[in-house]
Amino acid sequence: MYKLVLIRHGESVWNKENRFTGWTDVDLSEKGLEEARTAGEILKSEGFTFDIAFNSVLLRAIKTLNIALETMGLHWIPVIKSWRLNERHYGALQGLNKAETADKHGEEQVKIWRRSYDVPPPELDVDDERYPGRDPRYAELSQDELPKTECLKDTVERFLPFWHEEIAPTIKAGKKVVIAAHGNSLRALVKYLDNMSDDEIVKLNIPTGVPLVYELDDDLKPLKHYYLGDQDAIAAKMSAVANQGKKG
Amino acid sequence: MYKLVLIRHGESVWNKENRFTGWTDVDLSEKGLEEARTAGEILKSEGFTFDIAFNSVLLRAIKTLNIALETMGLHWIPVIKSWRLNERHYGALQGLNKAETADKHGEEQVKIWRRSYDVPPPELDVDDERYPGRDPRYAELSQDELPKTECLKDTVERFLPFWHEEIAPTIKAGKKVVIAAHGNSLRALVKYLDNMSDDEIVKLNIPTGVPLVYELDDDLKPLKHYYLGDQDAIAAKMSAVANQGKKG
Repeated sequence: MYKLVLIRHGESVWNKENRFTGWTDVDLSEKGLEEARTAGEILKSEGFTFDIAFNSVLLRAIKTLNIALETMGLHWIPVIKSWRLNERHYGALQGLNKAETADKHGEEQVKIWRRSYDVPPPELDVDDERYPGRDPRYAELSQDELPKTECLKDTVERFLPFWHEEIAPTIKAGKKVVIAAHGNSLRALVKYLDNMSDDEIVKLNIPTGVPLVYELDDDLKPLKHYYLGDQDAIAAKMSAVANQGKKG
Repeated sequence: MYKLVLIRHGESVWNKENRFTGWTDVDLSEKGLEEARTAGEILKSEGFTFDIAFNSVLLRAIKTLNIALETMGLHWIPVIKSWRLNERHYGALQGLNKAETADKHGEEQVKIWRRSYDVPPPELDVDDERYPGRDPRYAELSQDELPKTECLKDTVERFLPFWHEEIAPTIKAGKKVVIAAHGNSLRALVKYLDNMSDDEIVKLNIPTGVPLVYELDDDLKPLKHYYLGDQDAIAAKMSAVANQGKKG
């Protein structure tokens, strides 16, 4: 039996401002830093340890992981970073306030962009300064791989090759793995592991900074999963995420 | 022509207490955190960028690198950690105050342990809780690789395979490399690059948190080297390091 731990990054300065973030590389808020420390403390007190970590190339997930690992005394383990663990790319909505976007496009349309499985937000133009092709960290991506926008389905499709080629073989080799990533890249993984429908996965809200443990059998099929920590506080966090993006 | 950048970690809480640290995994002091930020700011303002970083498995070098990279907006580059970049192992002196050790063993003996090339401090016993064989981060080292103590010659010998097998090929592949490490693992590299004698290298004091740039030819032979930043402040730092361990 394998144990895999997932951590969604703590609150960022844009979560706090209620803006669409996507691949924008914003920092953690003070609360986000604290959530990362708490995640590390819970994992340590529950006796978890890791041999290797996987991470996105975005600061809020990188700092969440670094802080959690340092808190556990595991800052020395190898960390593999990949753009395939990045948050869903939010296209031309990146940087916009969620409530203002609801005022402009209608709450229903924003809900579709946020919560449908296969309807992407408007595309970024390649001339837009937000286009990832202009960022050196994505220099090795092909034109096809560089997103102009993504629906959750797109995020699933670019995440899964990394799971199959990198993470799954590492787990099967007996390494204890932690993944620190984002709401939608973790949804992509959970959808795959639990074989969830398109409708189900968009309703799942993974709380920030709360370690999510998957127990997996020899074929990496889930036996069960559970969050670590105060269960009432976790339920309150999940409902808070679900209520973002209501009309301002 | 290649450029290689070396950074010695900022002040640690034990540097401040004037204790022999070696492989003891102590944190940076507030001043050390600030030195790391300053290193990142200087590198950024001088237009440096990196494709990959090499690091030890000790917290003070890991945090120095993380902070400097974040300051440069380069937190997303790959980081390779290796015990071969660790500080010199200080044997049974680890944890002892330098001035007290001078009082007990004599200033001359301490100077020999600190500044000779091939006289190691007293060995740790394998039953000692400080013995690295008891630390999971060194679980993959063979009995021969696990140090009970080290002179600088030993540090050079365990560092060089990592240079030849990992770092040098990466530089020759055209990657821009930064190494964040420790006083003696960086001495090991400088001795090799500049073909310095045993007597010369023990007199070299690399200042903390100051980027040291090596310009290397196609065969990785040094063309020149220089420190980045305020040259008077750097000279003062180098002389401060040289004066540690005088009788208390």
